Amino acid sequence: MPHFIVEYSANLDGRADIQTLCEAIREQALQTGFFEIGAIRVRAISCKNFAIADLDERNAFVHIKLRMGAGRSLDDKRSIGEAIFATASKQLKPLLDEPYFGLSFDIQEIDPQLSWKKNAMHPRLRGA
Amino acid sequence: MPHFIVEYSANLDGRADIQTLCEAIREQALQTGFFEIGAIRVRAISCKNFAIADLDERNAFVHIKLRMGAGRSLDDKRSIGEAIFATASKQLKPLLDEPYFGLSFDIQEIDPQLSWKKNAMHPRLRGA
Amino acid sequence: MPHFIVEYSANLDGRADIQTLCEAIREQALQTGFFEIGAIRVRAISCKNFAIADLDERNAFVHIKLRMGAGRSLDDKRSIGEAIFATASKQLKPLLDEPYFGLSFDIQEIDPQLSWKKNAMHPRLRGA
Repeated sequence: MPHFIVEYSANLDGRADIQTLCEAIREQALQTGFFEIGAIRVRAISCKNFAIADLDERNAFVHIKLRMGAGRSLDDKRSIGEAIFATASKQLKPLLDEPYFGLSFDIQEIDPQLSWKKNAMHPRLRGA
Repeated sequence: MPHFIVEYSANLDGRADIQTLCEAIREQALQTGFFEIGAIRVRAISCKNFAIADLDERNAFVHIKLRMGAGRSLDDKRSIGEAIFATASKQLKPLLDEPYFGLSFDIQEIDPQLSWKKNAMHPRLRGA
Repeated sequence: MPHFIVEYSANLDGRADIQTLCEAIREQALQTGFFEIGAIRVRAISCKNFAIADLDERNAFVHIKLRMGAGRSLDDKRSIGEAIFATASKQLKPLLDEPYFGLSFDIQEIDPQLSWKKNAMHPRLRGA
């Protein structure tokens, strides 16, 4: 953790740079100061089939979900959320300027008692 | 929001029309009267690797998840769920008639305090 | 239910056998004794775009999410979790031995009042 999952309609291929978006989210997550570098995992899932709003062919969406361990204060969670959403909004501004796009983001907490992990990257990155 | 995410085993390609399913869910979501058209986002994710039940090669599944803002009554949520599930069941009836298919659906709520969105479609569609 | 969703970075193609991982999870889920065979659905989602930790090109991840009906005791859930995580760790041991990999797993419960399903496999498998 944290896990960032970017879901998007496949008609954004060629209209948005999803790889750059993933990297910008990673960078912003680091800059919040809440997360250890070795723990950050951003990934994107392209959705080939979709049905959005009025079905105009130009309609597209990006939804970003952050899943992270429970326990932080609401203020901290909202501060993380504002930062990530501002970054995503900036990256996708050209799309938001046209009336065919929806961007959304939410945070979901993971119960620490129902979570298991092994991270082989931490020793390498903590030693660096 | 609402977000409908259709996950399915890739062996349904050629056996089910996932695009039509997405569009039927969109249409039914509209007809419930609970959702604004510009907010509806249905998408499907194809899963190439899977292991279902007894591993019979014909085994397949569709799982639909609705993620929507928290706050509606249980009755309203159940009413939405019944309508969407009936639509999906109708669309996928030929599969349900064979003993190799599982269809499931669930609703998950999103904490409004941990949710951010910008929707450039609303002004266009509200004005229409 | 239960639903196992395996998300992984696409740079694992050729480095990990995701199909075998799915089958091992299915087998282990059966062996816990908590789940009916016809209900088990394991699937994997490959993520082509990602940004992990320090962006080293070798960095990769697998995240497994189990979504199952609410109502089991914490002890039972933890017992299921330990078993599945041990199986996944064993399957992915070569990756965990290198400092470029993160494996994680969590359990999420589904509200039975907001869940619908039709399973055409049960009659066939219960009769078997």
